[in-house]
Amino acid sequence: MPVGTRGSVKGLTPQQIEDTGSQIILNNAYHLMLRPGDEMIARRGGVHRFMRWNGPILTDSGGYQAYSMADINALTEEGVTFQSIIDGQKILLTPERSIEVQNNLGADIIMAFDDCPPSVDPASLNESRKRLAAQRSGPFRKGYDHATRLREAHERTVRWLERCVRAHRRPDEQALFGIVQGGTDLDLRRASAEAITNIELPGYAIGGVAVGEGTDLIRSITEFTAPLLPPDKPRYLMGVGYERDIVAAVCAGVDMFDCVLPTRNGRNAQAFTPQGRLHLRNSAFREDDRVIDDSCDCEACRGGFSRAYLRHLFMAKEMLGPTLVSIHNIRHFRRLMLDIRRAIREDNWSDFGRAWPVAERGSNPTPEIGSG
Amino acid sequence: MPVGTRGSVKGLTPQQIEDTGSQIILNNAYHLMLRPGDEMIARRGGVHRFMRWNGPILTDSGGYQAYSMADINALTEEGVTFQSIIDGQKILLTPERSIEVQNNLGADIIMAFDDCPPSVDPASLNESRKRLAAQRSGPFRKGYDHATRLREAHERTVRWLERCVRAHRRPDEQALFGIVQGGTDLDLRRASAEAITNIELPGYAIGGVAVGEGTDLIRSITEFTAPLLPPDKPRYLMGVGYERDIVAAVCAGVDMFDCVLPTRNGRNAQAFTPQGRLHLRNSAFREDDRVIDDSCDCEACRGGFSRAYLRHLFMAKEMLGPTLVSIHNIRHFRRLMLDIRRAIREDNWSDFGRAWPVAERGSNPTPEIGSG
Repeated sequence: MPVGTRGSVKGLTPQQIEDTGSQIILNNAYHLMLRPGDEMIARRGGVHRFMRWNGPILTDSGGYQAYSMADINALTEEGVTFQSIIDGQKILLTPERSIEVQNNLGADIIMAFDDCPPSVDPASLNESRKRLAAQRSGPFRKGYDHATRLREAHERTVRWLERCVRAHRRPDEQALFGIVQGGTDLDLRRASAEAITNIELPGYAIGGVAVGEGTDLIRSITEFTAPLLPPDKPRYLMGVGYERDIVAAVCAGVDMFDCVLPTRNGRNAQAFTPQGRLHLRNSAFREDDRVIDDSCDCEACRGGFSRAYLRHLFMAKEMLGPTLVSIHNIRHFRRLMLDIRRAIREDNWSDFGRAWPVAERGSNPTPEIGSG
Repeated sequence: MPVGTRGSVKGLTPQQIEDTGSQIILNNAYHLMLRPGDEMIARRGGVHRFMRWNGPILTDSGGYQAYSMADINALTEEGVTFQSIIDGQKILLTPERSIEVQNNLGADIIMAFDDCPPSVDPASLNESRKRLAAQRSGPFRKGYDHATRLREAHERTVRWLERCVRAHRRPDEQALFGIVQGGTDLDLRRASAEAITNIELPGYAIGGVAVGEGTDLIRSITEFTAPLLPPDKPRYLMGVGYERDIVAAVCAGVDMFDCVLPTRNGRNAQAFTPQGRLHLRNSAFREDDRVIDDSCDCEACRGGFSRAYLRHLFMAKEMLGPTLVSIHNIRHFRRLMLDIRRAIREDNWSDFGRAWPVAERGSNPTPEIGSG
């Protein structure tokens, strides 16, 4: 799922998104709640109509953004109080309010409001990373104990899910997914998966990964947790990731992904290819007449836009650069998913491996091309 | 002609430009010469191939930008010495160099390198405007006399045109247009038109208008000068303008226009309609579910993007806002030109006037809608 944080996949028209083959996009409830407001969007007939996207939409619950983007003032059983990034206003986000926001936005899939602890024990971090973790996860009180915090977050996430289910006003139109927490503690992951899947829902997600714990832990948590979720319902790994992480997760049984990498990196002149990433501002591409990836059928590659031209657009700060590379990157990940489906259907992973060296198990997540 | 200053109509793919119905675009030789460099573009096969625009392109000569954007160090018979906006390097732009740059870029229509004096006598300006005019036109030496400067510029423009013609290496592939100068002095305009059209060229332009002299003077200069140009060759009014200025100029016999208004104003949330401009950041549009102009068939209006959504995009600083409103504005001016053609063909200006109140002779150039 490409990410359309504020009701727009940055720089792309809905037609351009559709042309990448994307079938569903993600919007952030947190951002849309603050601006232009979920009730305003409800009055417009919902977020599909507002942004003119006719396909399915998933909204996240706002929990992760409330933790990661805001100065948290208080985290209680009631919910999270944080300061708005728009005007500094204090806002209380609760399970009930998150579901109300998502009912107003009207996405096809909505997410439970969960308690997201830091993935790594802040005691193991240096001072600057500790301050960052504190900002992301609320103040670490005197006597903070990471194991206790993980358990508390897991148990609270279960209680909050029950409140989400009770608060959900449009269950026939919007599929509510539960989220498994538990951090890096596999016993807690098992307990969380049991408790969350005990609540009958149309789909389940693995949360609290890709929040700073590194690729090996992402993989081991995913490989442990995914099989604990019902095989006949969609399994969604939130916020992952690079090609090799996606392939490993699919092999572990995951069905759905979202990530800002294609668009965020695209805006920053990084183009994904099956062989690695191109940093298009690099002088190596100054007179490179090749397209980003000659195996790609996206609007940028099929259209013949050269690396030299794309580099020029970024050097000249032209908006068209971010647009074209975002289109390419979204199509890159879409092609990855299509090839994964084919590898599964035909049970042929060796052809897949040859086409996608960047997705191999041991591969460096950031091989760079042309930076020599 | 939409303006694609740096080899890109800001925020639009070539497909989106084509979808507005535009048949020709303008690139700025000045900007492309400085970055990525005209020789680099020549090695890529020319600017059409570089930017993937298959239709015709016109390049301006760089003269106007050298005057208007740079700190001019010296203006001599040889050419203009100015500082690069990229790296401060001193650059000498001469008629020969301008034509070489344009030969390298390879546009279908190229423009003569002219001497652009300020349109209004700096003596009539206040101090801050005088400083601006000095920056735009070179230092006003002790004893500067505006009438003398206008005459000097006209005579030099003729000599420079002769040098451009001699320097032109690709006359069979690229049509070189001459430019009439003369400022606001109609006798000088007549002398310039005679001297310039004495040189046999495939087209002629009226330069030195819309450089600060106001709408009435633009109109009187155009109405005086256009009929002095050969009726069987294209007449191009450079850098104009608003709807009513274009209509008046067409009635005076002008065929071609370029202007940054559709894209520059579009990026700044201003949308053109036949009734006036919408300032889409205005709170009046907060919950306005109408498209910009329900008579418009552009991608933004036909696509159903509401004023409320467009306002949200601008408030949230989303790139898609500038893209969609630029598309609309370019289509707006394209529709204006199509309707002007029909009015001429059917000799029916009363229907035209009813459809385009904003193009009426006495109309305010900036009627604003919804700002109450």
